[in-house]
Amino acid sequence: MSRQPQPTPRPGGRSARVRQAILTATSEQLIAGGYDALTVNEVAAAAGVAITTVYRRWPTKAELAAAALGELAATANPMPDTGRIETDLRALLAQILGLLRRPEIARLVRAVAAIDPDTPGADAARVAFWQTRFAGSASIVTRAIARGEIDAAAEPEAVIELLVGPAYLRLLLTGRPLDAELEAESLRRTLAAYAPDTETT
Amino acid sequence: MSRQPQPTPRPGGRSARVRQAILTATSEQLIAGGYDALTVNEVAAAAGVAITTVYRRWPTKAELAAAALGELAATANPMPDTGRIETDLRALLAQILGLLRRPEIARLVRAVAAIDPDTPGADAARVAFWQTRFAGSASIVTRAIARGEIDAAAEPEAVIELLVGPAYLRLLLTGRPLDAELEAESLRRTLAAYAPDTETT
Repeated sequence: MSRQPQPTPRPGGRSARVRQAILTATSEQLIAGGYDALTVNEVAAAAGVAITTVYRRWPTKAELAAAALGELAATANPMPDTGRIETDLRALLAQILGLLRRPEIARLVRAVAAIDPDTPGADAARVAFWQTRFAGSASIVTRAIARGEIDAAAEPEAVIELLVGPAYLRLLLTGRPLDAELEAESLRRTLAAYAPDTETT
Repeated sequence: MSRQPQPTPRPGGRSARVRQAILTATSEQLIAGGYDALTVNEVAAAAGVAITTVYRRWPTKAELAAAALGELAATANPMPDTGRIETDLRALLAQILGLLRRPEIARLVRAVAAIDPDTPGADAARVAFWQTRFAGSASIVTRAIARGEIDAAAEPEAVIELLVGPAYLRLLLTGRPLDAELEAESLRRTLAAYAPDTETT
């Protein structure tokens, strides 16, 4: 930090690098020890920044964890747009299952699931998770409705919930396998559940 | 304990009462503090039994938690059998959502979700949860297949996963509401997803 501060900070410069360093350190701590073991002190130390730098951006631990998860979800999940609902949903589900099968990602998801809703900032964590992981994928459904491929009355988020709900249920509660059979079954049944009323498409 | 031991212990006698006291204490501790805070010491103290009495029946904390959850699920969930798949699934989903809407039950489910699969006994906890909460409900599907009400190729557990997956996803991750809309949507789409191939039934 021997340089003089720039009069106008460039976007994507030091500020973006600091943000990235903090979120990377947060992800690593979440993966290593879960949400309970996450501390802003250790994140700041690992990222090489002052504790106040972390708190200025993310006032609570939950918001910090949410931001780290959101970052991870955004980089790992480009939205499929193949022009057909079946191939879009197949690609999306394959992406999500690919992530959930990685033990360190499973541990992150488990850490989010464990956050008590009474924890300050917990809502922020959940909303951020939802928005980055699922709401983006709703555009897949919106396009399919426009093409007449699925029930026009479908709520986009509900379609995605039906597609991925069984996978998260297995990961978080029942321990059943995230296998190819689940992948095929979830895709097939979600398409059938939201098939257009008339079969003329 | 001033009485002499019976030569042959009666089933449903002292042994069953001890079991019940331990599992009740376990549920209360899980609800109060989650899985991390659960200790066999405190459970034993609350139940008024020796620590070894707990360990003899449930060698790990995870198995103890699983047994407590299983007990709770079994008492709160008589299986519907109305003679029609639609009313059976509607009643089952209403039961499950009724439980998940209770904050103390939500906290228990969250505690199970938080158990790391690498924890000794964690598999036992998950399997017990699955078996008591879901596998029993598979009989609803088996009967519906016999009546020709749903796709004969349906895997019973998969039907239940599709029915309840979105609800658990909302509870554990996204924080979306467990409302009447979700209830109606999950039921309607699950029935459509598993409708028999021919509409002659």
